[in-house]
Amino acid sequence: MPDLESLYAKLDLPAVPMHTNVTYHSVPIITDPSTGRTISESLDIVRYLDETYPSTPRLIPEGNTMLIHGFAMLFAKQTFGHLVMLIMSECKLNEASLGFYEKTRPAYFGVPTYADLKLTGEARRKEVESLKAGLDGIAKLYEVNGKGEYVMGERLSYADVVVAAMLKWWSLNLPEWEEVKGWNGGRWARALELMDEKYGQVL
Amino acid sequence: MPDLESLYAKLDLPAVPMHTNVTYHSVPIITDPSTGRTISESLDIVRYLDETYPSTPRLIPEGNTMLIHGFAMLFAKQTFGHLVMLIMSECKLNEASLGFYEKTRPAYFGVPTYADLKLTGEARRKEVESLKAGLDGIAKLYEVNGKGEYVMGERLSYADVVVAAMLKWWSLNLPEWEEVKGWNGGRWARALELMDEKYGQVL
Repeated sequence: MPDLESLYAKLDLPAVPMHTNVTYHSVPIITDPSTGRTISESLDIVRYLDETYPSTPRLIPEGNTMLIHGFAMLFAKQTFGHLVMLIMSECKLNEASLGFYEKTRPAYFGVPTYADLKLTGEARRKEVESLKAGLDGIAKLYEVNGKGEYVMGERLSYADVVVAAMLKWWSLNLPEWEEVKGWNGGRWARALELMDEKYGQVL
Repeated sequence: MPDLESLYAKLDLPAVPMHTNVTYHSVPIITDPSTGRTISESLDIVRYLDETYPSTPRLIPEGNTMLIHGFAMLFAKQTFGHLVMLIMSECKLNEASLGFYEKTRPAYFGVPTYADLKLTGEARRKEVESLKAGLDGIAKLYEVNGKGEYVMGERLSYADVVVAAMLKWWSLNLPEWEEVKGWNGGRWARALELMDEKYGQVL
């Protein structure tokens, strides 16, 4: 993770804008040998692939760009604030990345040391309940679909990739993952399994 | 507004569920003379019309039900909490509805009297700024669309109806509407005009 800045420099890639005046160096990055283009930032990669290879199935169907971006924003709003408090100090990191986290994250979250980010007891339980409430809101949305397990019903889209990528991260790092798997009738365990089974080699 | 409960009873319509254990009596309600069905709740009406008259343009294209519901939820999250504090005591109501508001709203918002809902000065300015921040988030989403002024680019959908219905309400009741019209390069004034021009007779 701390090595990404130099990788971006080597690839001559501009940093990704996050908020006004803040940029970051994100993965994944792809280089397409047939065009020579190098692209970072997941959504830009998806749009590039959809546009460059129009005869393959699109992850963002025509007319759905804003709705799918909006869904990603909604999913983040419903989960990320609580999730990040639960997972931040629990992520399995290599030594270099751990050092980077220890150096940068306390200031980012306004606490004295990295250890202070570890949430326990009552405070932790409260964030778990808030995460559950956020996921309940998304689960209710799935119910409006008549058929199909995907956000777009029977058609896979980038919205499902957003959900599965989050769940994959949680499944590997969130101590409460076993509990999450039981929420909303097992929806989240199923969503991750479905994607792992069908597209596991891509993820 | 206080007469809606008796109208629902007369039409033999069940109240609309809002949250667990809370129901309400909403407008619009339609009766379709060709099928004899009576339906309330905007989204259910749209789905009924799309399904019953499949040869007319759909407001919710196939596969977009959850994404459009999600957009409505996101738009509400970005605006409604602040908006309701700004507009609640300013709505132009007939005498019966005003009486209903005066009776029910103080308890709903946890204040002693209806007059206490009137937000002024610094507190009001803060809510205006929060509403602006929420709309900035939605405006940024529009930017990901290449072509077209609609949420789905060049295709009108129920998502645009959600936005326009909100803007119409604000334009008639929100004291700061003239200010809102100048935000995000005039996007909100244009969105309402576009819908008023093209579909004004329906709205």
